[in-house]
Amino acid sequence: MAGTAYGLGIGPGEPDLITLKAYNILQKADVIAYPALEDGASLARQIVAPHVPTGRIEIAIRITMGQPADPIYDAAALEIGEHLKAGKSVAVLCEGDPFFYGSFMYLFGRLAEAGHPVQTVPGVSSMMACAAQLGAPLAARNDVLQVIPGPLSEERLRAQLGDTDAAAIIKLGRHFAKVRKVIEELGLTSRARYIERATLETQKMVPLGDLPEDTIAPYFSMILIHRRGDAWR
Amino acid sequence: MAGTAYGLGIGPGEPDLITLKAYNILQKADVIAYPALEDGASLARQIVAPHVPTGRIEIAIRITMGQPADPIYDAAALEIGEHLKAGKSVAVLCEGDPFFYGSFMYLFGRLAEAGHPVQTVPGVSSMMACAAQLGAPLAARNDVLQVIPGPLSEERLRAQLGDTDAAAIIKLGRHFAKVRKVIEELGLTSRARYIERATLETQKMVPLGDLPEDTIAPYFSMILIHRRGDAWR
Repeated sequence: MAGTAYGLGIGPGEPDLITLKAYNILQKADVIAYPALEDGASLARQIVAPHVPTGRIEIAIRITMGQPADPIYDAAALEIGEHLKAGKSVAVLCEGDPFFYGSFMYLFGRLAEAGHPVQTVPGVSSMMACAAQLGAPLAARNDVLQVIPGPLSEERLRAQLGDTDAAAIIKLGRHFAKVRKVIEELGLTSRARYIERATLETQKMVPLGDLPEDTIAPYFSMILIHRRGDAWR
Repeated sequence: MAGTAYGLGIGPGEPDLITLKAYNILQKADVIAYPALEDGASLARQIVAPHVPTGRIEIAIRITMGQPADPIYDAAALEIGEHLKAGKSVAVLCEGDPFFYGSFMYLFGRLAEAGHPVQTVPGVSSMMACAAQLGAPLAARNDVLQVIPGPLSEERLRAQLGDTDAAAIIKLGRHFAKVRKVIEELGLTSRARYIERATLETQKMVPLGDLPEDTIAPYFSMILIHRRGDAWR
């Protein structure tokens, strides 16, 4: 009988923010796969370290920044597919939630189209973890909440942010200065909260206005904005 | 020493979609509080039923639809505050994630302003659970994702939906016909997936076009839309 591939949401960073369901699947999985840097380092693997039994087959899917990812996912899907055909179950570790801007969807598409059984186990997203750590509810009542990637053009950022009750701005990186400028122009700086590496030991929270303009934000960072200041007001 | 109040995200419905962290806090909490209907029935309490130890103090926060909720939250915050002052810990159960349109934020505001220690434990949101069950990733790359409440006006719905890569439309209820009309006008019906009671035994998934126009969607329902059909394309 063919094995099942699981896209496992493992949560934002704190190991205990994994669900019981993902934890239990992890205990039984024959193979564990995860995204990794070129040198093999993997935040996802690190997050679940306290939960992974020894002696499992492990597949590090090494992504090289700036190189086409399609051939890498093609190869990973084939390798995982071979294990599934051999009746083995495969847990693919996904930081946060697998379907919220997660790279698991590229494997999901390939595995599903090849006819393999695939299940997605939702996880605690970084967006919810950031809100919890900041004590800043995302949205209430009939608020529109927008998730806005930092790489968008200044014009698009201005249009989206000008037209929403609440926002989470993700993928800040080297786009930080541009994003901050738009927030300032819209008069929202006092409503904006910045956080990086939420729930990890290296977590940092700073009022947006206190950060230097030339900040290069790490990948795991986010700005949350609510037009009313606090969503419950 | 004062006790701590925890806003516990308990996930979308399937009991094992609670986090290890929330599960552990639940085992140790002296008091368990949860939103309930006027007759005391509570979905939140029902979701965690397999996990709750016996003999705990329980507080059902009874919300009457159509009546002002402020006095109810005032009274609940006072009652919880008394337990905290007596050194007891209080777990407040929150369906999904506490800060994603959750009523916990109204208690959070009151308890925090009264100087009580409050912590929010993020949970798996229904939005992520719906995407997982539907096999429909929410957003990828530089997509804008909007969360849009159904009660908004037809004009506002049209403006927001016309201006986004992906959307989750929540709080459908009796607004279903209006929402569906706008989706149809924008040519997005073939991109829209409907789901109710995700991860519960009564879960139902239907292509949006198959639902009668006079559908009254239950509270726990959602429409997910992605302009490309599948986010990974």
